[in-house]
Amino acid sequence: MIITLTTDFGLKDPFVGAMKGVILGLARNVQIVDITHDIPSYDVAEASIVLYEACRYFPAGTIHVVVVDPGVGSARRPIVFAGNVKGTDQIFIAPDNGVLSLVLGSGIVRQITNTSLFHHPVSQTFHGRDIFAPVAGHLAAGIPIESVGPAVSDAAAHSSILKPTVLRVDKFGNLLTNLRREQLGRGFAIRAGGIEVRRVLASYAEALPGEIFAIEGSAGLIELSLNQASAADRLNLGRGAEFEVETGSLNQ
Amino acid sequence: MIITLTTDFGLKDPFVGAMKGVILGLARNVQIVDITHDIPSYDVAEASIVLYEACRYFPAGTIHVVVVDPGVGSARRPIVFAGNVKGTDQIFIAPDNGVLSLVLGSGIVRQITNTSLFHHPVSQTFHGRDIFAPVAGHLAAGIPIESVGPAVSDAAAHSSILKPTVLRVDKFGNLLTNLRREQLGRGFAIRAGGIEVRRVLASYAEALPGEIFAIEGSAGLIELSLNQASAADRLNLGRGAEFEVETGSLNQ
Amino acid sequence: MIITLTTDFGLKDPFVGAMKGVILGLARNVQIVDITHDIPSYDVAEASIVLYEACRYFPAGTIHVVVVDPGVGSARRPIVFAGNVKGTDQIFIAPDNGVLSLVLGSGIVRQITNTSLFHHPVSQTFHGRDIFAPVAGHLAAGIPIESVGPAVSDAAAHSSILKPTVLRVDKFGNLLTNLRREQLGRGFAIRAGGIEVRRVLASYAEALPGEIFAIEGSAGLIELSLNQASAADRLNLGRGAEFEVETGSLNQ
Repeated sequence: MIITLTTDFGLKDPFVGAMKGVILGLARNVQIVDITHDIPSYDVAEASIVLYEACRYFPAGTIHVVVVDPGVGSARRPIVFAGNVKGTDQIFIAPDNGVLSLVLGSGIVRQITNTSLFHHPVSQTFHGRDIFAPVAGHLAAGIPIESVGPAVSDAAAHSSILKPTVLRVDKFGNLLTNLRREQLGRGFAIRAGGIEVRRVLASYAEALPGEIFAIEGSAGLIELSLNQASAADRLNLGRGAEFEVETGSLNQ
Repeated sequence: MIITLTTDFGLKDPFVGAMKGVILGLARNVQIVDITHDIPSYDVAEASIVLYEACRYFPAGTIHVVVVDPGVGSARRPIVFAGNVKGTDQIFIAPDNGVLSLVLGSGIVRQITNTSLFHHPVSQTFHGRDIFAPVAGHLAAGIPIESVGPAVSDAAAHSSILKPTVLRVDKFGNLLTNLRREQLGRGFAIRAGGIEVRRVLASYAEALPGEIFAIEGSAGLIELSLNQASAADRLNLGRGAEFEVETGSLNQ
Repeated sequence: MIITLTTDFGLKDPFVGAMKGVILGLARNVQIVDITHDIPSYDVAEASIVLYEACRYFPAGTIHVVVVDPGVGSARRPIVFAGNVKGTDQIFIAPDNGVLSLVLGSGIVRQITNTSLFHHPVSQTFHGRDIFAPVAGHLAAGIPIESVGPAVSDAAAHSSILKPTVLRVDKFGNLLTNLRREQLGRGFAIRAGGIEVRRVLASYAEALPGEIFAIEGSAGLIELSLNQASAADRLNLGRGAEFEVETGSLNQ
C-alpha cells in the first residue's frame, strides 16, 4: 500500500516526521511518498494543482493525504474521497476546503466523523498528525472506507478554487488555468481579458496568427495560449486572475 | 524495522544518500524516514527538540539516528540509548554531545566501541556514514544491543543543553523552554526576567490577568506564557536565553 | 530492489512525485531513495560528482536514476550503464550527456531504444517521468537489461565533463577536481596555474613546505592542495577552471 503526503509544513520542523511515525505505527509496511511539503503556506490552489498533476501517475489504490489547512481547528470538515481520477481508482484524505476540487469526480465523498480512528489527544492545531495521518494509516491497514463516516454530497463544491482562475503563468506566457477539458464540455465560451475563446486546439500548429486559443496542457488542465508570444502579456492577466466560463448552453 | 534520520547535512550534498546506502547495505528491508536534514549547522539544541517532538509518534523499536555533531573527529563519544520515551521503547544513536538530553530517561546508555560494526575506512569528518549509519544498520539487522559497547552512566548529563533555556519563541510570544513537566516535580520555582513562576496551569483560561504562567505545550515542553499578550516582550527574553529553576526543595 | 534518484527538479513541483508514482506502478516493492533533487538547474558536472560520491555506498544491484538533462527533447540518447563502481555492480539510467562520466568504467552501456518500456504519451519535456522512471521500474521488476536496447561504445566519452576541471573549492581552499586516482596512472603531470604536479601524496604530512601537491580526497577524487594554506588562492583557480593533464607517457 502506498500513501503520499502533500503539505505546507516544510521540512525543518518535526511535523512531517510525526505524521510518518503515526502512519507507520498503524500500517508498518506502507510505502510513504512525499509529493511535496513545500506548498506555500495556506496555498490551497497550489496544493490542488500539484496534487492533481502528481496523483495520476500512482497505481490504483494509492492513498493521498493532503494537509494544506488554513481552517484547522475551525468547523471545516475532514473528508475522504474515493473515486476515479484519469482512469485509476484512488483515495484522497484532506480538509474540505477545496484542495480536492481538481480530483473530485466520479466517486463518493465521506465526512470523517469516526473519532475512534484519531490519534488522541487531538490537538487543535495539528490535524495532520492527529486526524489525517491516522485515518490514512487505518485505511492502509484495511478498515473499510465506510467506517470513516457518512457520505456527503456537498464537498468543496462551492470553494473559491472552483472559480475559473489562472493558477500559474509559465515562462512562455501561457496561462495555466484550473479548468479541466471535461468541465468545458462541447459548447463553451471562456471570457478573459476582453476576448472570447470557444475552441480547444489539439496542437499549437492549428492556431490562427495572433489567435488566443485554449489547449490541454501536459498537466491535463486548460491553458490559454498565443503561438510564439505571451498570452499573459496580450491579455494582461497573471497568477490568481479570475475569468468567466459559460458552458452547456452553447452549440459549437 | 524503522530507522529515522535527523541531521544538519541539508539535501544538496551526497551525505544523506551515502548514509542511506550504508544502512540499506546492512538491512535491506528497513524503512528509512527523514525527520529533517535542515537542522541549522551544529545546532544541537534545535536538533534535540525536533527529535523529541517527532520521536514520540513512532512505533516501539524504532531506531533514531541523530547526527548534529560539531565535535566530529574529537574525543566526544558515540553512544546508543535504549529506553522508554513517553511510554514507548525506542533506540537512539548519536554523538554524546547533549543532543539526546531531552529523551534520556529510564534506560541504558552504551558507548559505541565495537569498531567491527563501522564502515571502514572511518573518515575523520563523516561519522554519520562510517559509524552512526552502520551501527543503526547492524541493530536493525538484529545484532544484540550489548554488542555495540559497554554501558556508561555519565552521558550528556552535564551538557549545556540541560541548562534551563528558551529554545524558541513562537509567533504569539510564548517562550518554549527545554524543560519537561516531569523535571519540575511538585514544588518548583522558575525565575526568569525578574519574575518567579511556581505553578503549571492546565489551560490558558486559568491564568490571572497579567500573570506569567507555565503551561505544558503541545510538544510536552514547558512554555512560559501570558494570556493574549507576549511573554517574550514582557520578560524581555528571546531564543537562547537562560534562566533559573529550583526544584525539589519547595513545597507547593 | 533499490532505486535512487538524483535530479535538478527541486521539491516544490509535482515532478519527483510523478516519477515515484510511475516507478511504484511498475515495481511495487522497490525502495526509492532520494540522493538529491537540489542539483543546480542543468548542472551536469555537479550531478556527476554527487552521484559518484553517493552511489558507492549502496549495495550491489542498486539502480541509480539521474535526470539532469539540459538536452531533453533533443537528440541526446537515453542510456543504461551496468558496470562495476568501486568493486560493486550497479546500474545507472541517465541521459548521455556526460553525467555518468565519473562512474563509467568496466561494464556495458546500452542505448534505450525500446519504446514499449516508456510511459505513454511521452512528453517532450519530461523524460524523467516518461522514459527514465519507467525503464528503472521495469528493470527493478526483472526485465533483462538487454531488452532496453543495443550496446553502444561511445557514451559520453567526449563530454566536456571529462576535461580536467575544478569541480569545487572547499572552505580550506583545496581544489576538488573531476580526476580519479586511477585515471592518472603511474606517470603523470598535472599543469595548473603555472605549476606542475607529478605525485599523489598519501597524507598532508608528506608535503614539502609551500608545495602544491595532489591527494586523493574522501570522495575518491584528486584534490590539489597546499598544506595549511589555500591552493585556490595560490594558483588563482576556482570552480569550473580547466587545466591540463598528461598521462601514460611519463616515468616517475
